[in-house]
Order: sequence, then structure tokens, then C-alpha cells
Amino acid sequence: MFQTFDSPTTPEQGPPRLANLRGWMAQQELNGFIVPRADRHQGEYVASCDERLSWLTGFTGSAGFACILEATAGIFIDGRYRLQVCEQVAEDFTPVHWPETSLHEWLAENAAPGAVIGFDPWLHTVEQIETLRTGLEGSGISLVASSNGIDAIWTDRPAPPNAPAWAHPPHLCGDSAEEKTRRLGAAIATQSAQTAVITLPDSLCWLLNLRGSDVPRTPIVHCFGLLSDNGALTLFGDEAKFADLTLPDTVTLAPWDAFSRHLKDLTGTVLIEPASLPQAAFDALTAGPAKILRGLDPCSLPKACKTRTELDGCRAAHLRDGAAMVRFLAWFDGADTSHLTEIDIVTQLENCRAATNLLHDISFDTISGSGPHGAVVHYRVTEKSNRPLDADSLLLVDSGAQYQDGTTDITRTTAIGPPGNEERTAFTRVLQGMIAISRLRWPKGLAGRDIEAVGRVPLWLAGQDFDHGIGHGVGHFLGVHEGPQRLSRVSQVPLDPGMILSNEPGYYREGAFGIRIENLVVVCEAGVPKGGDVHRVMYDFETLTYVPIDRRLIRTDLLNAAELKWMNSYHAACKAKLTGKLSDAAQDWLEAATKPL
Amino acid sequence: MFQTFDSPTTPEQGPPRLANLRGWMAQQELNGFIVPRADRHQGEYVASCDERLSWLTGFTGSAGFACILEATAGIFIDGRYRLQVCEQVAEDFTPVHWPETSLHEWLAENAAPGAVIGFDPWLHTVEQIETLRTGLEGSGISLVASSNGIDAIWTDRPAPPNAPAWAHPPHLCGDSAEEKTRRLGAAIATQSAQTAVITLPDSLCWLLNLRGSDVPRTPIVHCFGLLSDNGALTLFGDEAKFADLTLPDTVTLAPWDAFSRHLKDLTGTVLIEPASLPQAAFDALTAGPAKILRGLDPCSLPKACKTRTELDGCRAAHLRDGAAMVRFLAWFDGADTSHLTEIDIVTQLENCRAATNLLHDISFDTISGSGPHGAVVHYRVTEKSNRPLDADSLLLVDSGAQYQDGTTDITRTTAIGPPGNEERTAFTRVLQGMIAISRLRWPKGLAGRDIEAVGRVPLWLAGQDFDHGIGHGVGHFLGVHEGPQRLSRVSQVPLDPGMILSNEPGYYREGAFGIRIENLVVVCEAGVPKGGDVHRVMYDFETLTYVPIDRRLIRTDLLNAAELKWMNSYHAACKAKLTGKLSDAAQDWLEAATKPL
Repeated sequence: MFQTFDSPTTPEQGPPRLANLRGWMAQQELNGFIVPRADRHQGEYVASCDERLSWLTGFTGSAGFACILEATAGIFIDGRYRLQVCEQVAEDFTPVHWPETSLHEWLAENAAPGAVIGFDPWLHTVEQIETLRTGLEGSGISLVASSNGIDAIWTDRPAPPNAPAWAHPPHLCGDSAEEKTRRLGAAIATQSAQTAVITLPDSLCWLLNLRGSDVPRTPIVHCFGLLSDNGALTLFGDEAKFADLTLPDTVTLAPWDAFSRHLKDLTGTVLIEPASLPQAAFDALTAGPAKILRGLDPCSLPKACKTRTELDGCRAAHLRDGAAMVRFLAWFDGADTSHLTEIDIVTQLENCRAATNLLHDISFDTISGSGPHGAVVHYRVTEKSNRPLDADSLLLVDSGAQYQDGTTDITRTTAIGPPGNEERTAFTRVLQGMIAISRLRWPKGLAGRDIEAVGRVPLWLAGQDFDHGIGHGVGHFLGVHEGPQRLSRVSQVPLDPGMILSNEPGYYREGAFGIRIENLVVVCEAGVPKGGDVHRVMYDFETLTYVPIDRRLIRTDLLNAAELKWMNSYHAACKAKLTGKLSDAAQDWLEAATKPL
Repeated sequence: MFQTFDSPTTPEQGPPRLANLRGWMAQQELNGFIVPRADRHQGEYVASCDERLSWLTGFTGSAGFACILEATAGIFIDGRYRLQVCEQVAEDFTPVHWPETSLHEWLAENAAPGAVIGFDPWLHTVEQIETLRTGLEGSGISLVASSNGIDAIWTDRPAPPNAPAWAHPPHLCGDSAEEKTRRLGAAIATQSAQTAVITLPDSLCWLLNLRGSDVPRTPIVHCFGLLSDNGALTLFGDEAKFADLTLPDTVTLAPWDAFSRHLKDLTGTVLIEPASLPQAAFDALTAGPAKILRGLDPCSLPKACKTRTELDGCRAAHLRDGAAMVRFLAWFDGADTSHLTEIDIVTQLENCRAATNLLHDISFDTISGSGPHGAVVHYRVTEKSNRPLDADSLLLVDSGAQYQDGTTDITRTTAIGPPGNEERTAFTRVLQGMIAISRLRWPKGLAGRDIEAVGRVPLWLAGQDFDHGIGHGVGHFLGVHEGPQRLSRVSQVPLDPGMILSNEPGYYREGAFGIRIENLVVVCEAGVPKGGDVHRVMYDFETLTYVPIDRRLIRTDLLNAAELKWMNSYHAACKAKLTGKLSDAAQDWLEAATKPL
């Protein structure tokens, strides 16, 4: 099992550590210190040695930070973690609703003018520090880069990960590392820059066709890189991890501690991404002669637009994963649910995936929410929270897998016992939104924010909505959450062919039930239908995920003809694509589950 | 008749005037001069004395500008005017596709380094000049404020308008000028400013409940204003125009030429709107001691959110206008169209409106496009372009009225003879988009750009689209195009109750036909339907326009049940609301036109 169900922290661990940190602050003549959840690479997952926030506070969420002052300690968490934080941290920590309250506003209220707040410049991005500095202007509160207070007091801190990196083979990537570094070097040159600084490991792993084991769930190896306009790359990291690899001749390995020196010595124009570059790297760069150009990580868009080879792999991975999901759903429908708990669901599903013999990891901890837990959008079941499945309730299961040929992410909501009318109605509206996105065609040039509303209209018309975006980008055997594309009201990156996105509208009734339906889709050129505008390039989505959607939860009377047709075609495709990959029992279940509505 | 059909300019007028302007440039030691279409108030309509662009070039479009260099003269026009400009200007002027090509890019290509380009700082906004200066950085081309070259050579330039302003009576506005100036003064104070500079006449007309006759189609009087945080206002303009008015005691009149001096003398913090403030006013302000705060014109949002009284007036105006439209449509359906031209349509429609005895003006020149002219989105018929109505074609009529109690804007597309299948199919898709917006409900806080796609989906699914926004804001007996709200992909102003918008999707097949269907709608609080989320504030639209939509063009087989229901309810409402306001013949037409589909 990859997933565990322990509660790795307790609220009690916080207060003595907080006292130690305040002692360190006093020695350093700091009135405050910021403890982010992020590591130097700003990824969603961090290694155990980088779990500073949870070590200090007990809070294990995937985003947030603490700001420790002499008399107050704020823990800043977003909407997903409002409830969780209260269970995980001691009273010494005050939860702050973020981003509604920004750090500078909170500091202006809680710190005295003249206060000096320390931060570790490797753990904060240029953009974060600039925003904070701007917000603090005129407050009399100052911000200083310092050493890391947690590292100073965390005496039994784990060692950094040291597993070797490995090559992601060419038949799974499409383009070679040589091709990609050369192409991206040329792209840097067209921006009149000589060098780009890359500090996102998934960018470098994609660029060099590498993978690694430095964090759970996302197969990356920690590293930084300097890419020249001629395609040469200096790769900074733990050299031992790369020792067994054959890297292109144009790649030079260097140790971590050479990174700052290299930055100081750079000349010409250097491209940086302020949203990901650590402040410390920026400080090193500005201490040297280089001219700085702000822009995007040059890997970001090319990585998002998958190659034909990557897409072929993704399709295969999704069918394999779909078959595992069908085996799981068939088992579930035949099981006596009165004896099952949320953890049993997670275990069974991971076993079904493991039985493929190709499961590298799960792509995130499975969300298995029964009844009211389904309404907790990022619920992670623990031994403590685990509950038996209610009779006559909904079960929401959001899960995914990392296979070498692709990353999956799927949510199905299933009825236990005869579903209520309110649940069926809401489920059907969520489904209508999901179908609207699946069927959509739109003109080239639009971003997620330009089309996202289309997936919400059925809920809106009923006076309902949900508080998350419709979808996120997905990597190829990399992060299950990957930018820059998103199906979200805040995403202005144009959608381009080859981008993989999730399509996952939902509906949540706090304390009662949660519904989410999620498929992955990929952006394609749509061609011009008869009578269409021949001068317009239009795009549409190809669906990657093929797993039946619970027919018992669909109110056919609410679907219009086009929606019904889509639904029946989708189920017919599920049957056609998965037949032959299943046991007899699962095949029987599939045939019943995909009957026309 | 308000509308005329003349072609007020000829291409031949341009070249000699261009030569004169270049002579003036040489005297002033300028290598270039920019001639915008705008006056000092940046409105859609300008007085005849401000028609500098059309006087110089012959181009009469409502937006654009020319940049005259020693050897080249560029005329910058947007997508609406690509064809028109070629017919209206001589070869000495080179059309430039704008905003695709920006002025600074064009200057960098067409002017030599060291070139000095003059501009009249009263006719350009702070934002325009800043954008241009930024774009020219490093080019060696410089920009200098100068006197106006056109005014120097236009010897028979008309005098400025001098008709008196008049009071817009309280029973039509809702709030008194005293209330509004006090409230807005307080709003300025909450931004920690002491004064706001207001240079948009429709803002000041709204604020003081004034109207005037300085430009066609929009009942404004030209003026500038300085509003204090205590609600006191200094109003700058042609004092004679205001002589007969009773203004609040807190309003002080001052002549135009005192404006710059007052700006120089301002102290404290002064709120300006960079998108509308003339550069000359900004220069005067920055020559004094004031501290500048950038923001929105303080009238902008309050003006957009109509009062209950204004909305009552709008509803009455729309029913009056709707009855006039029905009389027009009834006449049209009974007429022998083989003897009619586009101009006959305009004349008959204006007569129907004039027969209300309450028509103050039309709100813009009626667009009457037969056959292929329907595809020219901003077509204005002239004696020269006028064409007989084709048999078996579509007629697109986009028109509106200024009544004292409200401004209207409506488009109907009508079949002449039996419509073709392609036209009916496209019409039905446009209608489906228009219905989708009409029926929409959405959560508070969203802007036009967050919901606009909903009105395009039916066309998108067929591989079709149109190249304009779905809608614009509309004033109350003011501009028929009024910000800041828009139903457009670029509008990020949250929609608020009381905002009036047009809902006008379209479809255009160049050289063949044009389709547009337009109603005005107003944003309302929606209430929570049964089963809806009680914690969410949601908004919807109330329709203001009630005029039947051509049933012969609707393919009922393409409508889903909800669309069909909306359509039949809308027609039933048209019948209920207009019955009693019509002649017998028009009533008969209405009954037939509103029969259930």
C-alpha cells in the first residue's frame, strides 16, 4: 500500500516547538519568522525533511504557512483547510483565513511598527516577497532574509532524500532531451535572453526525460538548472543521484552549493519566472552583472502540450486505470457495504490498481468520502476519521495513479442504497455541467476562464454552485496538478492542443453529501463541421477517462437530447474500450452499467 | 427626421488638407502629429467643431485616429471599419489595422529615430499617452504636447455648440443632485482623497441631473468638474449654457479656461481616472502640489446601477418603444417589399417612434442592412450605399430611441420571403445564445467576462462564432453605450443590480447575410429557488425589451424544452404588455407574431 491512514502529527507537538522557535528568534533579534509549507521548488509535495510547517504546528495540509510573532502565531490556511486546521493545531496557533486576509494585513494588525520579520529566502518566491514588501510599505514593519529557524531547532530532522534518479525512456516521451534543450535554448534566444533559470523540478525532469523519488506521489528529482540559448544546461543537485544516468553531452552536473555562485557570475540577459524563483536565487543574480528579464519558465508551455507519444501513453494508461476502476466498482456493487469503511474503499481500490503490475505510485492520496465526508472537498481518511459507509448515502471516491506511460485522476460518486431525489437532482446537474465541458467546441485563443462558466450553468440555474475550479492541468507521469493551463475563472493561459485537463464539477451540501464527477480530457483541433466558419480554428476536448457513471444517480428526465446522446455514447465507448480487459464478473457489471439510458 | 443619409465627406477633401497640416508641422518643427477622433471628453459622439479626423481624412467612423508623418499618413481603424475606410479616404492615407498594430510599433517602422511627434494633450488620455511613451522607449522617437494642428489650418471650423443645458426632472432620476454629490463626496473621502477630477460629461450630467444638446444622439452638455469630499462641486464649461438652471448651492460655475488653474492650485490627494483624464489636465495637476490617486471616475459605478425610479422609467420607455417597433414590423410585413429600400426602412421606423410624441432623439443611427449589408456589423446606410430589399433575404434592423424616461436599443432580424435553411439554423443558434443569457442565474461577484461564453455555446458547437461582444452597458437617457459594465470577454467589472446591458449575439456570413437579436436586460437579485444554496447571493436578468422575434426564422426542432418554454413565455409577455397600445392592424399582427411555437 502506498497510502497510509495515520495521523502523523498531534496538536500537542506544537507548543514546545513554538517556544523553541521563539527562543531562536530572540537570539537572532527577530520579532517574527515566517514558516511556509513550501520547499525550494514550490511543488505540491515536499520531502519529510521539508515538512517544517507540520513539524512546527501539526497542520498537514498541502498549502499554507505560519507567521510566528513573539506573542501571536498565525496559521494561514485556505478554504479547503478551515476545519482540518482546528483539529490539527493547538490553541497557541490562530487560524487566519487566507487569502481573504493577506499576510501584510495580518502583520500590520499584530506586529508593532519597527518589528523585524525574518524569512528563509530559499523557501519564498520573488513574487511572494515583492507582494509582501509592497503590502508592508509605510507600516514600519521590515522583512529580512535570515537563516531558517526551524532547521536550527529541529534536531532530529530527517536527511534529504537520496534515491537515484532514472531515465524516462524515449518510447514514452517522444522528444529526446537533446531536442528539447536545443529547442528551448532557441526559444530563450528569441526573447533576447542568453540564459534561463529553472527551479521547478518537474520542468527539468520533463526537459531531460528524467524521473526520481524525492517526494511522494510525483516522480521528480530535486534540482535547479541554468539553460543557455545554445541548449547547454548546468544541472545543480545531489550529484550522486545522477551518477548512473547517461545525460546529453550538453548537460553539466554541479553541486547544490555552486548554484548561487553560478548565478552571480551570469552575464547578459537572464530569464526568470518570479512566481517560482526563490528570493535567494534572485538575490544572487542581482548581486552579479546580469540583466533580468521576467517571464515564464520556458518549459512550462511546451511541457503542458503533450507529444503524440505522451498522449498515446496517456490513452493506454487511462484504459488500464479504467479497467482497474471497473473492477473496483464491480466489487463495490456486489459487496455488503454495511461492513465496509472509508479505509476499506481506499485499500480495495489501490489493490485493484496494484493488480495491473504497472502501478508506480498513486497520484495522490485517495479521497474516500462517505455521506457528509463527501462534502469535504480534499478529505483524507485517517484511522481517526474513518467511518463505516452509511446505508442510503453517497460515496465520493477521487483517486489516481502514476503509471510510467501516464498520470490518471478520476472521481466517481456512487449510490449506496436507493438514492434520494435531492441527491439525484444535484448529481444530474453536475453531470450536465461535466457533459457541457466534454462536448464543448470553442475558438482558438481562449483560456480556461473564458469557458469555465459553461460547466456551471446547470447548477447556477438551480441556485447552486461549488467553490472550486472545474479543472486543473495534469502532467505526463509527473504532477497530477500541473500548470499553466487550468479550467478556472482565474486562468488566462490560452488552451492549446495537447494540454491535459481535469473536468470535475461538483456539488457539496455541508454535513450531508458531496458529489463530484471527474474525467480527464485533452485539447484537440476540432476541424470545421459542415456549415461552420471555415476561417476559424476551433478546439475541442478528447476524453481520456473511460469508466461508467452511476446510472442510478442520473435523472434522465432532466437531460436534453444532446446530453442523453452524449451519455449513451460515452457508456457505449466505455463498454467497447474496456471489454476484454476484465474478469467475467467485472464484464457483467460493465455491461449492466453501460446500458443505454 | 433625425437621421440623414448623406455622405458628409469625400476622399478628395483629404490631400490638400494633409498638405496644409504638413506645412504647419514644418513650422512647428514637428516630424509628426496625431489626430484622434476623440474630443476632450472621450465620448462616442463629437460636436461638428470636433470632427477633426473626418475633416482631415474623410473617414467618419466612430473610433480611430490618424498619425501624420512627413512622408506617410497612417489611419488607424479597428475591425468594424476595414471596408469603410477604403471607400472614404484618399490613397495618401494608409489604413493600419488597429489595435493589432499599435501606434508605437507603426511609428518605430515609419518614423526615423530622433523624430518628434506632436499631439494635442487635451484630446488624449493619461493612459493613452503613458502606453505610447512606454512603447516608444528606446526608439529615439519622442512625443511632445503641442497646439492642435487641425485647429490651426481649419479656417471655417464650426463654432462650439451653444444650446442651453436643461434640468432632468427629479421624478425621472430618483436621487437629487444634492444627495448624489454628498454621497459621492463621502465616497471620495473613504478613499482618503479630498477631490476627484471628473471629465466625462455623462458622469456630470448624471451627477447633477442635467442634460444638454452638445452632441447628436447622446443628450449631454460638455463640462468638467472638481468634486470635493464635502460634496461641493466646481463645474467648468460654457457658463451661458447653465444660466437658466437652478443648481444646488454647493455647485459653483467656472469658465473653461479656469480649469487648468484650479487643477494647479489643488492640494491634498486628488482622485483621477487615467482612462478618461486628458493629459493636459494631468500636466496641470502635476505642476501643482497635489498628490495623485489613480482610480475610477466616482460616478461610473453609481451611474451604472440605476435607481428604482430610473428603472421604472426604462420599463415604460421600452414598452412605448416596443409598441413603435411592433407598428413598424406590422407595416413591414404587410408592405410590398419589392418597392422598398434600406432608407425606407429607417424612415418608416423613425416615423413610428416619432408618432409616440415623446421621441427626444434616436439613440444612434439606425442600422438597416438588407442581405449582405446585414453582415456589416456597424452599417450606416447612405444615399450612395442604399439598396432595394432583396426578395428572399434577411433584413437586420438595429435601432434605438432616446426618451426622457429611458434609452432603448433593439435589434430584430426579419425574413423577406421564405427563409433558407442555413439562415434559419443560424438564426436559431443565435436565439439559443440570447435565451441562454436571458435565462441565466449566476453568483454575485462575477463580471461580464465570466458569463459571456454562455451566449456563444450554441454557435460554437456548430463551428461558428461572431466577432463582437455579447453586450454593452446602456445609460438612462444618456449614452446608449455606457460603461463600466459589459457582457464581453474583456470586462472584469462585477455585475451589480440595476446595471442595464444589451444581450445581442449575432452571426454574420460576409457577402451573404447578417443575423442579430438584441434585447436590453437589467441585473436583479435572484432570490433562492427551492433546493438552492441559501448562503449564496445570486443574480439574474430582467428583460426590458418586449418585441416579438420572427417565428418564421426559428427552427423549433433545434430548441430544447427550456428554450421553447422561454420563447413562448416571452411572446406571451410581449402580447400581454403591448396589447392596448396598438392600432387594430398592429394588434392583429402582434397576436399572430406571438402565437406559441
